[in-house]
Amino acid sequence: MAVIDRVTVTVFTTVIRSVVDGHGHRHPGPPREVKEALLEVTDADGATGRCLGQPETLRESMIKAHVRPVLTGQEGLDRERLWHALARRQRGAHGHLTDRLLSTVDQALWDLAGRKLGLPVWRLLGGARSVIPAYASTMCGDDIPGGLASFSDYADFAKELVARGYRGIKLHTWMPPMPHGVDLDIKACAVVRDAVGPDVALMLDSNHWYSRTDALRLGRALDELGFAWYEEPMEEASVQSYRWLADQLATPILGPETSWGKHMARAEWVAAGACDILRVGVVGSGGLIPALKAVHTAESFGMGCEIHGNGSGALAVIGATLCGEWYERGLLHPHSDYDTPPPHLRSIVDPIDESGNVALPMRPGLGDDLDVDHIAAHTVATW
Amino acid sequence: MAVIDRVTVTVFTTVIRSVVDGHGHRHPGPPREVKEALLEVTDADGATGRCLGQPETLRESMIKAHVRPVLTGQEGLDRERLWHALARRQRGAHGHLTDRLLSTVDQALWDLAGRKLGLPVWRLLGGARSVIPAYASTMCGDDIPGGLASFSDYADFAKELVARGYRGIKLHTWMPPMPHGVDLDIKACAVVRDAVGPDVALMLDSNHWYSRTDALRLGRALDELGFAWYEEPMEEASVQSYRWLADQLATPILGPETSWGKHMARAEWVAAGACDILRVGVVGSGGLIPALKAVHTAESFGMGCEIHGNGSGALAVIGATLCGEWYERGLLHPHSDYDTPPPHLRSIVDPIDESGNVALPMRPGLGDDLDVDHIAAHTVATW
Repeated sequence: MAVIDRVTVTVFTTVIRSVVDGHGHRHPGPPREVKEALLEVTDADGATGRCLGQPETLRESMIKAHVRPVLTGQEGLDRERLWHALARRQRGAHGHLTDRLLSTVDQALWDLAGRKLGLPVWRLLGGARSVIPAYASTMCGDDIPGGLASFSDYADFAKELVARGYRGIKLHTWMPPMPHGVDLDIKACAVVRDAVGPDVALMLDSNHWYSRTDALRLGRALDELGFAWYEEPMEEASVQSYRWLADQLATPILGPETSWGKHMARAEWVAAGACDILRVGVVGSGGLIPALKAVHTAESFGMGCEIHGNGSGALAVIGATLCGEWYERGLLHPHSDYDTPPPHLRSIVDPIDESGNVALPMRPGLGDDLDVDHIAAHTVATW
Repeated sequence: MAVIDRVTVTVFTTVIRSVVDGHGHRHPGPPREVKEALLEVTDADGATGRCLGQPETLRESMIKAHVRPVLTGQEGLDRERLWHALARRQRGAHGHLTDRLLSTVDQALWDLAGRKLGLPVWRLLGGARSVIPAYASTMCGDDIPGGLASFSDYADFAKELVARGYRGIKLHTWMPPMPHGVDLDIKACAVVRDAVGPDVALMLDSNHWYSRTDALRLGRALDELGFAWYEEPMEEASVQSYRWLADQLATPILGPETSWGKHMARAEWVAAGACDILRVGVVGSGGLIPALKAVHTAESFGMGCEIHGNGSGALAVIGATLCGEWYERGLLHPHSDYDTPPPHLRSIVDPIDESGNVALPMRPGLGDDLDVDHIAAHTVATW
């Protein structure tokens, strides 16, 4: 136990091999230099918790106005109290103190706790399981030759993923700004089912702005194809649309991913019958604390909860509970090498074995294997 | 991290100054020797987690058939996994592997984790607050001279409790086998409100088998008297009765205490609108793990959750979240000395200050201050 005496953000350059389109979808690309940021929270004993984030998320104004005043001088192990204190400042911050910023702070505090106590965070939280099957989560459809540009591209890639050991595959199909539509989705799902056979779990995460009727038509096709779940075909702000859809489909509806409202939004979905499997992310929903509350809510209602997104925060929640069956590994693409870490990491946190399983990290804290030398040598700003 | 290599129960004699009537209600009594039991879970490093319980709860047959096989050789920090493994054995154990036994094991494992990591369990869990206001929870009405035998006894005791610093008082009124009824309850509540004035929070926990109409009549009186909550006037198996009652009263309905079903039962109450404030106990509902799931469910639905019962387990949950406003301190009675520990404890875990607050224990683990010498000298059986 020791008070926090330093909160710093280090912006550094690293190299990634992907590009992001105008709608926020990531595709493979040539190596390029980008800026990332590292949040570090250090206590009076010199212990440090760390979490990577985006410079825009961890912007200086928010760190100075909110994060530093809330954390400095406070007991570093009091994650729950500090989370609430920071979350209470969101309403007055006009959207700039985002759930992503809250999550980054939350994760850094859990990392600090795990490091101080010499335990991986999933075991600190209670320790439910040490291994989890991963599903391959593909990038969205594209127009890249040999990429995910055609139905046969999807089929070939699915077969490759199964050969690598994956027992589950989630398709992200074509989305804006690419030409897209229900017929394309149905065809892609059908050829992939045909390619991998009946024993591989398949899921679909489609264009998020279909009408109710289009979403239903696509869902009926997934019913025929025996999909394990159906994710975000419509605008998630309309909970009633999801209830309407869930009432009519055999395929489980999974959601919400992007809904505003942290664990409270998840409770609304559960109570409304808008999903058959709950969804919550660590990064997007405000951190481990609200994600765990959402998972515990799902458990209390006898419902599964699948954690959105990859990374050490997701793994911490997955290892802390028995709720949910999968880890989302990706995004993956025929031209993309997920297993080679970027220069600011010495190894990836989620290597997969030949059976398609990911072992939870045993390193104290969240388990990210940062290359602090790279970060120090490539620092371009600090605040 | 180390595997569990020993699970033992020590039955010992101690002295208490209370008696239990045929309906399970505790009243003051002369000093008498009783048997209690201590569950100890020891890992390969020699670290031990402990939890007190009843010999009947921790009976030898259940320890041998279920607890020892589930725990032995397993990583002691994996509380969540071990809890589920033990809970899965309840269905086949014909009611003998009780939620109380599950809770005692769960608490011993959390105690072990806290001791190993050098942290109080509430801080290990996240650390939300270090102090909590306590309400005085009275024993049930009786026929003891100068006890809780008359309306003026309740009024006098309430004034005494306020003078001791309590800002909240919960009345347990007359229950079977004593003569009891709604009119007695209303009168007792009215004289206590009159005695303490409008600024003290008052709650009622009445006879649990009123009819709907009697419960409503009593509730309307509590509305007039400005009670903070109304607890268990009816059989809790009828969730619909509580929804019916909650729909008609201004006074918040608090529940359920005794419902079968751990955190899942709490979710049903929330979804049914059967309570305004949720209730869960650590001892009665299967331990810290289900209690936290219930609290997180309440939080996700924007609802408060008050923890049932006193003791170190309740304090651990209270300190881990910001949900709920009170700690239940008691049971108290004019003839009973709550603050002097029984011989098997060196101090009580929940001393109260003059402002009516209880500081959360800072001792590693759950914080119980066992007198191991007393227990060793008064051991009558071990298994």
